[in-house]
Amino acid sequence: MRGYDDTRDDHLLRLRRIEGQVRGLQRMIDEDTYCIDVLTQIASVTKALQKVGLNLLDEHVRHCVVEAAAAGEGDAKVHEAVDAVARMLRT
Amino acid sequence: MRGYDDTRDDHLLRLRRIEGQVRGLQRMIDEDTYCIDVLTQIASVTKALQKVGLNLLDEHVRHCVVEAAAAGEGDAKVHEAVDAVARMLRT
Amino acid sequence: MRGYDDTRDDHLLRLRRIEGQVRGLQRMIDEDTYCIDVLTQIASVTKALQKVGLNLLDEHVRHCVVEAAAAGEGDAKVHEAVDAVARMLRT
Amino acid sequence: MRGYDDTRDDHLLRLRRIEGQVRGLQRMIDEDTYCIDVLTQIASVTKALQKVGLNLLDEHVRHCVVEAAAAGEGDAKVHEAVDAVARMLRT
Repeated sequence: MRGYDDTRDDHLLRLRRIEGQVRGLQRMIDEDTYCIDVLTQIASVTKALQKVGLNLLDEHVRHCVVEAAAAGEGDAKVHEAVDAVARMLRT
Repeated sequence: MRGYDDTRDDHLLRLRRIEGQVRGLQRMIDEDTYCIDVLTQIASVTKALQKVGLNLLDEHVRHCVVEAAAAGEGDAKVHEAVDAVARMLRT
Repeated sequence: MRGYDDTRDDHLLRLRRIEGQVRGLQRMIDEDTYCIDVLTQIASVTKALQKVGLNLLDEHVRHCVVEAAAAGEGDAKVHEAVDAVARMLRT
Repeated sequence: MRGYDDTRDDHLLRLRRIEGQVRGLQRMIDEDTYCIDVLTQIASVTKALQKVGLNLLDEHVRHCVVEAAAAGEGDAKVHEAVDAVARMLRT
């Protein structure tokens, strides 16, 4: 059972919308849309993806990390989560 | 005619791959994949999206901005491109 | 008492080094250093600053958030920490 | 002569303010400031640094890149500038 069990539908909805936005980007390229407008849309899709990531992170810390900490094994879980944040920052 | 005329196929290929990765993210959520692994994949999709953005930016500066500059109208185009970079940084 | 009590010296050392790097950036501007080299150095200082942020986040979650969770008040602390990550992502 | 010749003072002013903010971060650590408040301030300093980077990028493209393009050597300069943006994105 994952931290995101209650919110699966919300994540899936957001990801399906992002999939539609990525198809929209393909149409923009097909239709010779002005570069800057494509870049603006890419920034918007990136933001939407990171919002899913932040929601997952929130749930992960509230469930997995807190449970691990109660069992005396929190430190490794926290380092793992912070490493994931570092990867998000570095993209 | 856009700056990305010669490279349209490369952009479309990358965007179709990104679309597949976003569907992969939906499967990961459906199959209860460990949060941290989903986050790692989100960072990877974000990176792929930003690579498309950087390629578009490169072409845009080499074509639209340089042509505008030759016509004495470069400054506005440069500000516009740098604003687009600022939006990419802020996502 | 803060989560970073044991590691204060490490944070201060990193921040003093960053302060030196920012002075180095001023010298680079004074001495007409090539723009791209200044940008590379700005990226390096930004990375160093974010490393301090990630270290603080790690300690904060291991101490404040985990303690709050044990007292049944974890959710608000987690939301607050994830909001801080969102601000780091958006800069 | 660099692209930032006219704006040197503005860059230096911003960098001196950033230097002061980094010293402020050291005081915050010294005085046991709440982690989240330190993180918020780190995000603010990062943003200020990136603003200097964006200003330098703007000038660099308007001067060095456009001149190189007029001399038929624009492509290498554009790639170099976009690589610098990639490094800013990845920090």
